[in-house]
Amino acid sequence: MGGPGQDAHDAVEVIIAKRDGGELSDSQVDWVVEAYTHGVVAEEQMSALAMAILLNGMSRREISRWTAAMIASGERMDFSSLSRPTADKHSTGGVGDKITLPLAPLVAACGVAVPQLSGRGLGHTGGTLDKLESIAGWRADLSNAEMLHQLEDVGAVICAAGAGLAPADRKLYALRDVTGTVEAIPLIASSIMSKKIAEGTRALVLDVKVGSGAFMKDAARARELGETMVALGTDAGVTTVALLTDMSTPLGRTAGNALEVAESVDVLAGGGPDDVVALTLELAREMLLAAGVDDVDPADRLRDGSAMDVWRRMITTQGGEPSAPLPRARETQAVTSTRSGVLSTLDAMAVGLAAWRLGAGRARKEDPVQAAAGVVMHAKPGDQVTEGQELLTLYTDEPGRFDRALAALEGGVAVSDTGSVRESQPLVIGRISAT
Amino acid sequence: MGGPGQDAHDAVEVIIAKRDGGELSDSQVDWVVEAYTHGVVAEEQMSALAMAILLNGMSRREISRWTAAMIASGERMDFSSLSRPTADKHSTGGVGDKITLPLAPLVAACGVAVPQLSGRGLGHTGGTLDKLESIAGWRADLSNAEMLHQLEDVGAVICAAGAGLAPADRKLYALRDVTGTVEAIPLIASSIMSKKIAEGTRALVLDVKVGSGAFMKDAARARELGETMVALGTDAGVTTVALLTDMSTPLGRTAGNALEVAESVDVLAGGGPDDVVALTLELAREMLLAAGVDDVDPADRLRDGSAMDVWRRMITTQGGEPSAPLPRARETQAVTSTRSGVLSTLDAMAVGLAAWRLGAGRARKEDPVQAAAGVVMHAKPGDQVTEGQELLTLYTDEPGRFDRALAALEGGVAVSDTGSVRESQPLVIGRISAT
Repeated sequence: MGGPGQDAHDAVEVIIAKRDGGELSDSQVDWVVEAYTHGVVAEEQMSALAMAILLNGMSRREISRWTAAMIASGERMDFSSLSRPTADKHSTGGVGDKITLPLAPLVAACGVAVPQLSGRGLGHTGGTLDKLESIAGWRADLSNAEMLHQLEDVGAVICAAGAGLAPADRKLYALRDVTGTVEAIPLIASSIMSKKIAEGTRALVLDVKVGSGAFMKDAARARELGETMVALGTDAGVTTVALLTDMSTPLGRTAGNALEVAESVDVLAGGGPDDVVALTLELAREMLLAAGVDDVDPADRLRDGSAMDVWRRMITTQGGEPSAPLPRARETQAVTSTRSGVLSTLDAMAVGLAAWRLGAGRARKEDPVQAAAGVVMHAKPGDQVTEGQELLTLYTDEPGRFDRALAALEGGVAVSDTGSVRESQPLVIGRISAT
Repeated sequence: MGGPGQDAHDAVEVIIAKRDGGELSDSQVDWVVEAYTHGVVAEEQMSALAMAILLNGMSRREISRWTAAMIASGERMDFSSLSRPTADKHSTGGVGDKITLPLAPLVAACGVAVPQLSGRGLGHTGGTLDKLESIAGWRADLSNAEMLHQLEDVGAVICAAGAGLAPADRKLYALRDVTGTVEAIPLIASSIMSKKIAEGTRALVLDVKVGSGAFMKDAARARELGETMVALGTDAGVTTVALLTDMSTPLGRTAGNALEVAESVDVLAGGGPDDVVALTLELAREMLLAAGVDDVDPADRLRDGSAMDVWRRMITTQGGEPSAPLPRARETQAVTSTRSGVLSTLDAMAVGLAAWRLGAGRARKEDPVQAAAGVVMHAKPGDQVTEGQELLTLYTDEPGRFDRALAALEGGVAVSDTGSVRESQPLVIGRISAT
């Protein structure tokens, strides 16, 4: 059998230990992650192990060790030479979740550096890099040296995670995607946290989404995921806090790449939808607190334009033209209300799926996205609407996509009498910090 | 997506259904087995499904359908043209389990044809074909026409299962072996039964071994396996009975290929160890009963030499020389008793492992085996022994193997005072028939 490392194990031995409900030893975890990264443990062996982990769980010690082993599979960044503290944010993904765009420059404007390594979108939730790539000239790929320089100089960087960061996670994520093992909380938590810890931030705020448009539909499981990630960050010496936030309805009034950039710029200019502003400020305060900065109110930095200044420098430094007009879709279609009343439902999953089908998202990693495709929401749940009023506008470059987008919205948009409006969920449902 | 058949499913959908504790539909089972056989469902997807089946189980309907789908993946033999009824036996494997060798000719001598498709050994239990291949000239590979002719002419055939029989099982078994999913009862049962049903026998007796030297260490799990297989056979129209038999100590006095052939010939000649004779007769009676033959006593056919006649014709028809001397090992080593008393332990796993390490078994499919390697047991549990008496003789062609064989026996052979001998387990622990 054999394999890398001093403590050689055997894949079947490790699988059987977890299958039979045991705890894997540190040496088993280290071995299996390293051997998998190097192809000594085969894909079919790792998928059996992933299923056993999904069904039998992992202890906090096992998950911490698994995360550490994934970090050790690649390079680890180091921002300790920076003159200011670092903080980052990670969202588990939601519809209309453009918060990173205003948040990173806002926190930087408050004196905390934000090294945000992001991904592209897959499925119904958009990716931060896809959104920023709708800005003419902007590039996602930076060298480590460029990233460090921009962090020191501008204070915020949003760029693509390099292939050197947690390569075990990259391989494992692709496997989980095709083997029905995405939903294992230990594997979700270690996947997210291995990249964030390897990225080198000293403080981390997690935005764990709950609701129809989120990966976690259920508050109890979202809380479990949040607690697991906070524990992992804490074990790795990163000050970590998680907020559980509502994703039953989309964030803001736009879902789609360029549409969300425009809305983010509105927020940085002092406007924008209330929910986006509120969540941006809430997350900014948590990041500052976690980074040990308690003498700045981020609301001031929105008001005085300094967050917008950082945004413009951040975009410019990465080759983008912050003042260039954003792409506009060639085709639009209105969705109007069939009656008067109160908008009672605007379902996040329905809107996310519609935006995806309009071309804003991709089904496979290698697919392109349309910069201008998406959905603009003219009313939010609780708003009074009248018969014939435009509730949504759909945008795409390919009109053949409207039918399937409209089908996605069926049952996801509802107008009722005033009396039947559900009490709206608060945006922040819970907060988890280290115990 | 896509795949063969009208009802196309998706591998991830099927995996998730089982992962979440659901029952797979007939259409999902048919699709996933066929798609896996044709490589549309990937190895890593099937291993995740196998782990979910192991941990979440399958209903009787699912296992029956799974078995039928595995049979449908290949050819199905038909012995309905034979002039006599058919019956077969399958053992889940034990140390010293040479019963097939005297049993097949004995049952044929009683007027029931035995179409025994066998395998080679892997691990500590020997394979029937490996044993017979120690006979000069004997060949395991027969065409279907040769097999049918021999069944009509001689009444018994023991040969290799062709690649056309349940190819899905062949592929799945190799996968389970490396992914820690061998132990799933639905998969063990459907693996065994798909081959036995496809083989075309009308009656089947299962010898489910329990104890240290067996695959199933635990009587409750062995009973579950037996019940599952009896249900599968019954559902497929095969009269099926299972005996649970003890495998805490080896069967007979030999473990090893040529050694077991010699012991089998002793049984056919009217001698041989009591336990081998008793189990051979018990299984023969069950096979005759299942085949609807109730007017012959197999003990008479041992006594009158007709079983030996069938043996010789069976070996000769497959090119073997039944009178040729069997290979003898170049090296021997004695294991003697360090005290006087009663042999209280002769552990089946210890002896099986020792025989394996002496060269009687293989670690990988492609390894050769030594015909003459193995262990002869001069005493059985309950026997009086004296200090210095030879308890075991080890045989191998490579003396370098003795040390590891002796290590395997440590703790597996014990002599105690008369008073401390355990009450010996009956050989047949239970019987399961269709309800």
